[in-house]
Amino acid sequence: MTMNATAVKQRSLFGLKDLSQEEITSILDRAAYWEASSNKLNPVLHEKFVANMFFENSTRTRFSFEVAEKRLGAQVLNFSAAVSSVQKGESIYDTVRTLESMGIDAGIIRLKPNGVLAELGEKIKVPLINAGDGNNEHPTQGLLDIYTMRKHFGALKGLTVTIIGDVLHSRVARSNLYALQKFGANVQFCSPDNLRAPELNAPYVSMEEALRSDVVMMLRVQLERHEGGMMGPAEAYREQFGLTEERAATIAPHAIIMHPAPINRGVEIDDAVIESPQSRIFPQMENGVPIRMAVIERALA
Amino acid sequence: MTMNATAVKQRSLFGLKDLSQEEITSILDRAAYWEASSNKLNPVLHEKFVANMFFENSTRTRFSFEVAEKRLGAQVLNFSAAVSSVQKGESIYDTVRTLESMGIDAGIIRLKPNGVLAELGEKIKVPLINAGDGNNEHPTQGLLDIYTMRKHFGALKGLTVTIIGDVLHSRVARSNLYALQKFGANVQFCSPDNLRAPELNAPYVSMEEALRSDVVMMLRVQLERHEGGMMGPAEAYREQFGLTEERAATIAPHAIIMHPAPINRGVEIDDAVIESPQSRIFPQMENGVPIRMAVIERALA
Amino acid sequence: MTMNATAVKQRSLFGLKDLSQEEITSILDRAAYWEASSNKLNPVLHEKFVANMFFENSTRTRFSFEVAEKRLGAQVLNFSAAVSSVQKGESIYDTVRTLESMGIDAGIIRLKPNGVLAELGEKIKVPLINAGDGNNEHPTQGLLDIYTMRKHFGALKGLTVTIIGDVLHSRVARSNLYALQKFGANVQFCSPDNLRAPELNAPYVSMEEALRSDVVMMLRVQLERHEGGMMGPAEAYREQFGLTEERAATIAPHAIIMHPAPINRGVEIDDAVIESPQSRIFPQMENGVPIRMAVIERALA
Repeated sequence: MTMNATAVKQRSLFGLKDLSQEEITSILDRAAYWEASSNKLNPVLHEKFVANMFFENSTRTRFSFEVAEKRLGAQVLNFSAAVSSVQKGESIYDTVRTLESMGIDAGIIRLKPNGVLAELGEKIKVPLINAGDGNNEHPTQGLLDIYTMRKHFGALKGLTVTIIGDVLHSRVARSNLYALQKFGANVQFCSPDNLRAPELNAPYVSMEEALRSDVVMMLRVQLERHEGGMMGPAEAYREQFGLTEERAATIAPHAIIMHPAPINRGVEIDDAVIESPQSRIFPQMENGVPIRMAVIERALA
Repeated sequence: MTMNATAVKQRSLFGLKDLSQEEITSILDRAAYWEASSNKLNPVLHEKFVANMFFENSTRTRFSFEVAEKRLGAQVLNFSAAVSSVQKGESIYDTVRTLESMGIDAGIIRLKPNGVLAELGEKIKVPLINAGDGNNEHPTQGLLDIYTMRKHFGALKGLTVTIIGDVLHSRVARSNLYALQKFGANVQFCSPDNLRAPELNAPYVSMEEALRSDVVMMLRVQLERHEGGMMGPAEAYREQFGLTEERAATIAPHAIIMHPAPINRGVEIDDAVIESPQSRIFPQMENGVPIRMAVIERALA
Repeated sequence: MTMNATAVKQRSLFGLKDLSQEEITSILDRAAYWEASSNKLNPVLHEKFVANMFFENSTRTRFSFEVAEKRLGAQVLNFSAAVSSVQKGESIYDTVRTLESMGIDAGIIRLKPNGVLAELGEKIKVPLINAGDGNNEHPTQGLLDIYTMRKHFGALKGLTVTIIGDVLHSRVARSNLYALQKFGANVQFCSPDNLRAPELNAPYVSMEEALRSDVVMMLRVQLERHEGGMMGPAEAYREQFGLTEERAATIAPHAIIMHPAPINRGVEIDDAVIESPQSRIFPQMENGVPIRMAVIERALA
């Protein structure tokens, strides 16, 4: 790899697994700077073209990136196309390569097939930012999550964080796990047996124990997995793994509740819990913008 | 309600029913200012983020708002997602709340389920502008309509305006009715029996009498209601309630023809009538931009 | 036609058939200027609103136009709506007329039904740029193609260019043919018998002869035409008309390979050929941006 290619890779963001604690801290600190900034527009990226390339639907995440890009004064291009499983990797590569040819300075990319992003990283010459990569990582979500925890608790070391739900398929769980462990947090999972990810280095605990954590992080239930039977009916799931009002009432007063959204109200979390005082669900979304500003600025400035 | 919440509500635009004649006049006057402005770009909203949130398809209305926003120099974010009847209100609330969390300064919203917009008004802290609310109101359409009439006739007092078509389901009819009556215009409806709205305070007249009005306003036929039989076959509808060339020839020389678009050519109005000298259909679209500039500026400046 | 309407027509770009060699050269020269420009943003169109109106899907071409528009500092509006064959011309006219009413300064338009663009040219008062017109022309593709050839060979006169594939339905083939012949290039086609266009003034050659050209230009196979039998199965097509690795190895060292993209890898062209040294496929995409900048600037500056 040439020096230039290495430099591009360092400005890309594929996952939190390969970032050092120092690199993550520097992103969090820069996000804090942007959060505190009283200027909505900061045209530090005025001549830069950023393409949001969403091969998997997600208007919310795209929107958060777009706000971040525009707050930095970048020129924004939105490209979205659901890619069928037949086309898969090749079609994604051709599209990204096409947009690269047209002169974009960085690409935000979300896609489903595992492994394609890593391949793109070898072939594409502009920095790429992972906005959701199959079942692999979702690093900006992980960053905004730990930013939210750091903001509340001051530090991450020693915190007990339990991630509840479909860990097997969750890129959010993975990005949080990798980042939190670098900071010395105790990460635990709480999942139905058939939705565990045995390759991940964290213990599974009961729902009862999960509720004793400093951070209770709910994962979104993939409703399409219910009918097939992987999770059982939604009511049964809620009964066993949902953060019901009753359960939420038992968590410690200093603890916080998190969820990456979008939420299935009344399935993995009850309505009344979502905007309760201990919930950080909407603040997580707020924090997403300065985090993405920091990540995009790192890629381009 | 706090003073701040009240102030936000006053900058929002949910409908014309609750605006005073003075408030409406002030919007129309400001639109006239923007229409006369020789500058295409007027960056009075340079640091403001405006989200177009369309939960019901309408590229035209969205486009008109987008031109208005960009002429004022705002940062524009487009969010569109058809919402199925199952998801309905909750999903809309979560989405709007999400976008609010990301830092938008105002939201333009179009949606189908009745009552949801009013609920959002209670919960969302940034000004919202109604771009089409179920069968309730469509205030910017009403404003551009009366702006178009005022421009042609000089004043609205004493004008006879007949609105022809599916009044029952029309938010355009409602917004026009509420606004025009405040200014002392005589509003009449002309509709098939099963498409009348008995709760609205205006008389129904025959097609013959409708053609004697100062303003002949056609409503769009909802073609999907034809097959079910509510309106009968399109040809029969045209024969009874369409503005055919023959009928258009009988209206007074000083009168004007209006239609909110999109048009079903050859159903509620004949091809040749659409761009005839008395038609104001394309000028209505032109007027939509300065009206929306005035409404957005009122929300944010 | 009034003088003003004539002036608008001269700033529009409907096809290369009606442009003089001098006009084409002036666009190519201006594109070279933009390609050499070190500034990414050149706000020469700062107060101009450009609408991308795509009635036929094409995120790539739209994206290329959008980059060009934004590099020139224009305000960009994207409108896309697949138009069913039932709605066809009228619906397109109403939409374009609507957007015109809202104050756009120029429109980029892509559409399927033949003849509609010519009609729009008579009725719409702002300049229109053809971004793909049925089976008729695709002039910005033609321009970027000959720009790519001129860049490689220095001049077009005397070049032998063979266009291989479904000539019958190809607007790319037509735009290239018209432009290249004005410059004294020898254009040839190579097609299955049932995909020839007898009205076009160029000879058909064998695949063997095609490979002896200075420019080997592959057309995209319309996969939907395969099942119906027009082209036969994809493998048989590749065997007869595909640019396989074996065939690509036989072309002259000075020759180049082109393709308008998107590509069906392994059908009309082999994987390994796409990014081979003689391929200009990704450079074509690069060149599309300065070409479109020149065309849009010509329409508006």
